[in-house]
Amino acid sequence: MKKIGIVDTTFSVVNMGAIAVAELQKQGTGFKIIRRTVPGFKDLAVACKILIENEGCDIAMALGMPGPEEIDKQCAHEASQGIMQAQLMTSTHIIEVFVHMDEAKDGRELVWLTERRVREHAANTYMMLFHPEKMIKMAGTGQRQGFEDVGPTWK
Amino acid sequence: MKKIGIVDTTFSVVNMGAIAVAELQKQGTGFKIIRRTVPGFKDLAVACKILIENEGCDIAMALGMPGPEEIDKQCAHEASQGIMQAQLMTSTHIIEVFVHMDEAKDGRELVWLTERRVREHAANTYMMLFHPEKMIKMAGTGQRQGFEDVGPTWK
Amino acid sequence: MKKIGIVDTTFSVVNMGAIAVAELQKQGTGFKIIRRTVPGFKDLAVACKILIENEGCDIAMALGMPGPEEIDKQCAHEASQGIMQAQLMTSTHIIEVFVHMDEAKDGRELVWLTERRVREHAANTYMMLFHPEKMIKMAGTGQRQGFEDVGPTWK
Amino acid sequence: MKKIGIVDTTFSVVNMGAIAVAELQKQGTGFKIIRRTVPGFKDLAVACKILIENEGCDIAMALGMPGPEEIDKQCAHEASQGIMQAQLMTSTHIIEVFVHMDEAKDGRELVWLTERRVREHAANTYMMLFHPEKMIKMAGTGQRQGFEDVGPTWK
Amino acid sequence: MKKIGIVDTTFSVVNMGAIAVAELQKQGTGFKIIRRTVPGFKDLAVACKILIENEGCDIAMALGMPGPEEIDKQCAHEASQGIMQAQLMTSTHIIEVFVHMDEAKDGRELVWLTERRVREHAANTYMMLFHPEKMIKMAGTGQRQGFEDVGPTWK
Repeated sequence: MKKIGIVDTTFSVVNMGAIAVAELQKQGTGFKIIRRTVPGFKDLAVACKILIENEGCDIAMALGMPGPEEIDKQCAHEASQGIMQAQLMTSTHIIEVFVHMDEAKDGRELVWLTERRVREHAANTYMMLFHPEKMIKMAGTGQRQGFEDVGPTWK
Repeated sequence: MKKIGIVDTTFSVVNMGAIAVAELQKQGTGFKIIRRTVPGFKDLAVACKILIENEGCDIAMALGMPGPEEIDKQCAHEASQGIMQAQLMTSTHIIEVFVHMDEAKDGRELVWLTERRVREHAANTYMMLFHPEKMIKMAGTGQRQGFEDVGPTWK
Repeated sequence: MKKIGIVDTTFSVVNMGAIAVAELQKQGTGFKIIRRTVPGFKDLAVACKILIENEGCDIAMALGMPGPEEIDKQCAHEASQGIMQAQLMTSTHIIEVFVHMDEAKDGRELVWLTERRVREHAANTYMMLFHPEKMIKMAGTGQRQGFEDVGPTWK
Repeated sequence: MKKIGIVDTTFSVVNMGAIAVAELQKQGTGFKIIRRTVPGFKDLAVACKILIENEGCDIAMALGMPGPEEIDKQCAHEASQGIMQAQLMTSTHIIEVFVHMDEAKDGRELVWLTERRVREHAANTYMMLFHPEKMIKMAGTGQRQGFEDVGPTWK
Repeated sequence: MKKIGIVDTTFSVVNMGAIAVAELQKQGTGFKIIRRTVPGFKDLAVACKILIENEGCDIAMALGMPGPEEIDKQCAHEASQGIMQAQLMTSTHIIEVFVHMDEAKDGRELVWLTERRVREHAANTYMMLFHPEKMIKMAGTGQRQGFEDVGPTWK
């Protein structure tokens, strides 16, 4: 039985963890989900690392929603660097799913975008864990999570 | 008996460590606080790491107050990266509480904001140590530490 | 038999991994290629590290295509820092091949540039693995991958 | 007998190491100073790490003077990140003392500022090594090294 | 017999490695040089680390020439962070010698500046390896590598 770690935040205005859990359960079976919630996105990296090391998670999702201010961008950068380091220290994939509050024009679109991006990344997480060889068939096809795919620019 | 590390600075213009200690003691019992003070916020990361490694702290709070200049922002960025690394190297949460001096319009608001943010993060620290499962119920509820909560933007 | 790791993304709009494989096979023999595809360029670093550690790759290529937005530049920076760390943690070269979507004036040029840069870096990868001493003869000769070489500015 | 490491640069226009040694000797006794000089501030981090690891220093001072250009700011950022990492890798405090050449309006003020900042940080270094508990009494008192203290903004 | 590692790039338009080797041989004897050439400056850090770990180099020089574009500055920053990390991971000095193409007004000055900077850093490398105590006498004397020394601003 494989294990998937899900970590989200109380800072986010959308319950990202609940969406990820729902989508993973739609994708298939054969795994157990371990969920944690932390205050802000800068707490995600170490929480994911602990899930991998102490709970034996085979992959994790780090779900965060940076605010619109300049300082939020800086913090998101630090959070991302931490998630990168956590992956390298554990040699384990952590799928980072960040939705910036200023990507959407209003609250309605923010909820729509967040749900879509989290679901598409949950599908990626499932595929990377159970069918990594299928990812190769999608190489260079311009996939995007949230807004429309760009598609391949192939000769 | 669990241990909570508290580190603040002589650079700050508010005694952040004293506020954190007071709030933690209000939250409950069953823990011992170990407090340190360092010159500036760039000394916080290693001080927290030493408290975790040598004093056996189960969690720590890193309390700093960056000044308003451009160079202070850069230093705050370096300090945050260090706190991130300290967490990953010890697989232990360090709750970073930074109040930027230019977030407040005057000294009075600065004291108000600092006290509120430190207290709310102290409550988070207590909850993450003793009741981490309760955090999940607050996922995606738009919590903010200091200024007003944003609240959830849920369908 | 030496092993070369190739990792590309589903985000890219050109199948960079296929080009790298084709060029390496044109360069010579005596190696086995292990290919992986990940969602985005921020997943490249840990994927390369896993190929080196678990599959015994002697060198790897990390192939990514950052988008044109400011946030893409930031993410590319984080991805590059991760690839740097992965190299240092494994003491193994990972040849980073990034083509920024805004380097080309249209889709046609983007395909042309990507193919050329990936092929030239694949040739470098082959040479570094099998004939590192030949690199010294090219020191200071202003080599560029993709657009025209600059050439040496020698007295 | 405790050991204090002092590292400065040939790039600086003021002999920062000599000032640090003089001030430490004024502060008290019971320690041995080990001094090194490196070319630039980007060489400080590894020099401090070597003093801690190979010479058994209990604390170190990293003394540098970044130039006024944009590229100097970038290099100072890299140097600071290195000093942060060196501290975390050794779990030992390294007091960073940087004086930016453009902080002073002329050479005379630069010498005055440098001497004052180095001396005040040397006093911090001594106190952190021998009387860390005294630092707590100075928490939140707005200490500055070089220019005037800001003082506490306390209710 | 001590060992000095020299790594330069095929990207540079001046043969920096050849200049470093020539200057080191002029400085004295008692060492063996091990030279490598890599494609770009982002490959320097791991190449130096490999020379230190696998070839037993006691010190290394990392020679690179960043281009004039904004993206080159970003890459140079990543390369420098990598060289910093390589030093800290090996507790060994790596003298970084970067000449930015836009530091010089034309190709003639670029060659002049590069040769001068590489030679002065090669002299530093030799002195740090064989006579580190002599560096202390040059502390705070405003040394620059390439353009004119600034000199001390001493009372």
